[in-house]
Amino acid sequence: MESLWEKEIKKTPHVINWLREFNQQIWDKLVNCLTWMRPSGKLHLGHYVWALQNWLELQNNKNIKNYFLIADYQVLGDHLWETEKLRKSVIDMVIDWMAVGLDPNKSNFVVQSYVPEFAELFNYLTMFVPYNVATNNPTLKDEIKKIEKRWEWQNSWISLWFINYPVSQVADILLPKWEIVPVWEDQIPHIELARKIIKKVNAMYGTNYPLPKALISEVPRLVWIDWNDKMSKSLWNTISISASFEEIKTQVNKMYTDPNKTSVQSKWNIKNHVVFKYLDIFYKDKKYLEDLKKRYIEWWENSIWDWYLKKLLVEVLNEIISPIRERRKYYEEHIDEVVEAIEKGSANLRSEAIVMLKDLREVMGLLDYGKEFKKYVRFNK
Amino acid sequence: MESLWEKEIKKTPHVINWLREFNQQIWDKLVNCLTWMRPSGKLHLGHYVWALQNWLELQNNKNIKNYFLIADYQVLGDHLWETEKLRKSVIDMVIDWMAVGLDPNKSNFVVQSYVPEFAELFNYLTMFVPYNVATNNPTLKDEIKKIEKRWEWQNSWISLWFINYPVSQVADILLPKWEIVPVWEDQIPHIELARKIIKKVNAMYGTNYPLPKALISEVPRLVWIDWNDKMSKSLWNTISISASFEEIKTQVNKMYTDPNKTSVQSKWNIKNHVVFKYLDIFYKDKKYLEDLKKRYIEWWENSIWDWYLKKLLVEVLNEIISPIRERRKYYEEHIDEVVEAIEKGSANLRSEAIVMLKDLREVMGLLDYGKEFKKYVRFNK
Repeated sequence: MESLWEKEIKKTPHVINWLREFNQQIWDKLVNCLTWMRPSGKLHLGHYVWALQNWLELQNNKNIKNYFLIADYQVLGDHLWETEKLRKSVIDMVIDWMAVGLDPNKSNFVVQSYVPEFAELFNYLTMFVPYNVATNNPTLKDEIKKIEKRWEWQNSWISLWFINYPVSQVADILLPKWEIVPVWEDQIPHIELARKIIKKVNAMYGTNYPLPKALISEVPRLVWIDWNDKMSKSLWNTISISASFEEIKTQVNKMYTDPNKTSVQSKWNIKNHVVFKYLDIFYKDKKYLEDLKKRYIEWWENSIWDWYLKKLLVEVLNEIISPIRERRKYYEEHIDEVVEAIEKGSANLRSEAIVMLKDLREVMGLLDYGKEFKKYVRFNK
Repeated sequence: MESLWEKEIKKTPHVINWLREFNQQIWDKLVNCLTWMRPSGKLHLGHYVWALQNWLELQNNKNIKNYFLIADYQVLGDHLWETEKLRKSVIDMVIDWMAVGLDPNKSNFVVQSYVPEFAELFNYLTMFVPYNVATNNPTLKDEIKKIEKRWEWQNSWISLWFINYPVSQVADILLPKWEIVPVWEDQIPHIELARKIIKKVNAMYGTNYPLPKALISEVPRLVWIDWNDKMSKSLWNTISISASFEEIKTQVNKMYTDPNKTSVQSKWNIKNHVVFKYLDIFYKDKKYLEDLKKRYIEWWENSIWDWYLKKLLVEVLNEIISPIRERRKYYEEHIDEVVEAIEKGSANLRSEAIVMLKDLREVMGLLDYGKEFKKYVRFNK
């Protein structure tokens, strides 16, 4: 009989929209799920809204086996001269994961470079991919353009690793036979590449590796506090998810309110009002919020001033952030728990990875040249 | 005090000519030496003259630690659909290695894919190489042109692996810290790439990995029996190093003698005489050979006929080949010894490779993110 999961696989296209709905379903099998993050140091509210909230839901779904991948290869190339930055970023990020409630006893935190089988599988997969297909990946092309632009004032270069990275990502997906991969829309080409390569492997060797499905998350758009969409490395235009009360206040006070207001008589415009954007996402009393917006626009009666909104937002954010901040403090003082978490998660995956690669090499006939040759000799006698 | 080897390193450029001279020297240290062969099945006299004779000398030099690499990655991509061909080629080739006298107790026979650390190191090295440097390698460019020409009647494609392979070869060299690499002249760009990357690694991490030196072998030119310089896969224009007496006779009888002879009166020309070419290489009595040549040219006195030369060559070749043929027969019936040889050699290298990679990851700071972070925390308190 067809299982619920098999029905789902047939029904949905290779992209599943709305992580939340997906999470609310109960599957009749344990579904492998991969999510990854480039180690970027301390996390900010953007990470919280875009990823961590969804990850927490994934973690609480008992039908999903979660691996949260610390994609250090993807960052290492830019920091070869200063790997201490990478080390710090990895641990800072994992502390924040644990501070928001991700639990190494429920999910596996995996450091990519702790599992060398990723590199071995990647090496094999490059043989299945035509060079022109690898370089025609639209996301890769976009990223190359961005890098070239960003570094044009420097001695710019794209590494050979970078050209390989979409295939490296396919290895990330195939190694633990991941079935659903929550991604951004711009990463769908990578999932398509993964499906192509895995189909090819299945067709050649009669294997039955699952074709991964992209899971598009439903995430609200969070703008930066200066209405700038450029990522800031130094957090100066973001709010850290472990910010102190003073830091929250400083950052909220920096927020754009209405850059389009030209005269006292003109109506206040909330379209680009950063404080309201944040309240939309983080403030739970939506009814009161609508009321506030109305009063803000019609400012001459019951007027609501920016200082009031900012004060409200500071309180709202502090309520979300303060327990995270507390837990972060705890883990900073108990680094051993953090280290144990990444070591355990990586070891868990590695034990599966070794079996997977052995199986693959066996069906490819690479496991034991001699054994196979002896069969051949017997057959031809 | 400077050692003999250190003096040599300073004295010679990064290319050492004449393997033979090099071999005759006695070094005051054990020098790591890598040679590799793509598994191409049963070997022929070309392999014997171009490579195996030199390898035998390397093996007998007690100052050199030899690794003979079975470069299966380099062939696998072309045989994904039919890996049984690869398996057969690997074992057939190693049987021939052992049949000519290469000894797994003196040298290490290493199967590339049995040592996954090659792939892991390769993955790291791609981060050190600019994409344009990787693709501007002249040997790579030539080979791409050749592939495109060879396959133009097929659905031609170059794999992503192929673009990576010069860097993969650098991993082959660096992993066991090889110091001298006997190569053909067209492979010198690969050695130059290896030196560049290893210099970069040494500069970044204060490591002291040896810069490999290319060792150009002194090899006589061996033509194919039909005076064609295209490699034949089916051995139809070559002579197998384990050929039977009948096969040797058949192949020698096919040899071109003097394609330029136009009339009975014209002098015989030995410039393109394939039989003489082979005698030059394989016949030891050089004085008698000169005499033969003279008599052959001045054919009207003491005339020497082609049938005589061919008969002589058959005897000469059979003398060289028959012990190899015997030993091949032995190993075909004792495949376990062959299998043990590649397993032992690969395991030997692997135990060194694991240490090497651990050291590299340690100096790069990738070994234990947590340990490093704790140092950081202590330092900043």
